[in-house]
Amino acid sequence: MDEFLSVAIEEAKIGLDEGGIPIGSVLVMDNKIVARGHNKRVQKGSSVLHAEMDCLENGGRFKASEYQQATLYSTLSPCDMCSGAVLLYGISKIVIGENHTFKGPEEYLKSRGVNIINLDNEVCKNLMEQFIADKPLLWNEDIGE
Amino acid sequence: MDEFLSVAIEEAKIGLDEGGIPIGSVLVMDNKIVARGHNKRVQKGSSVLHAEMDCLENGGRFKASEYQQATLYSTLSPCDMCSGAVLLYGISKIVIGENHTFKGPEEYLKSRGVNIINLDNEVCKNLMEQFIADKPLLWNEDIGE
Repeated sequence: MDEFLSVAIEEAKIGLDEGGIPIGSVLVMDNKIVARGHNKRVQKGSSVLHAEMDCLENGGRFKASEYQQATLYSTLSPCDMCSGAVLLYGISKIVIGENHTFKGPEEYLKSRGVNIINLDNEVCKNLMEQFIADKPLLWNEDIGE
Repeated sequence: MDEFLSVAIEEAKIGLDEGGIPIGSVLVMDNKIVARGHNKRVQKGSSVLHAEMDCLENGGRFKASEYQQATLYSTLSPCDMCSGAVLLYGISKIVIGENHTFKGPEEYLKSRGVNIINLDNEVCKNLMEQFIADKPLLWNEDIGE
């Protein structure tokens, strides 16, 4: 499996073990992980710390030139908010675990020049399918529904 | 002046006094402020806590139906990330202080059904013009440039 996606999955599983939503993310620069995170809605009562946002927040303040050559990994297709963060910082590439259980504005991201690679990973899909079946209300809250 | 914008400006000034970026935001439901916040890049070394995000985070977890009838105020036109948060939660109305010193993806927001009102406020404009003149590198970092 992709080594960076496997760390994002590790993050998703940490989130699940904490009673949270199993989505994980890592930020990669120069082929190294510089930040990692997972969804913190439950753990911190957070409305903004989706996995990708938690990852970016854990990374702190990078230069624009650093973001622009970075790749953001996420176990799930990024929502409008996380996609917006990618656009704000000019992150040019996103690698996602899957977009079967949720699909963010991928076409819009592509129209803004972002390269999106979908690894269509079974572990990511299974994590979300099980979670959505177990906690549909929590999931709906996380995607504003 | 609009009473809610004046609280957003109060937040922007708190941020400035803390050595931060002078942008403030309030979230209004049923004509009452339910959350307020300001940019925390400097104060918390944060890459995600723009004023609107800090405000949403301070508000905690609302229901989708609550966000959908809310209005988000910001002293400045929301960037891609904050606009994305608005779209995620289906917030239907944004009132901004100005879009002269920075303009986010307002047309895209409108195309997704968001009502945007620009109060074109001089205090907001002056705060940002002075700040950008004083700390151009910090400002560029905040908008990914």
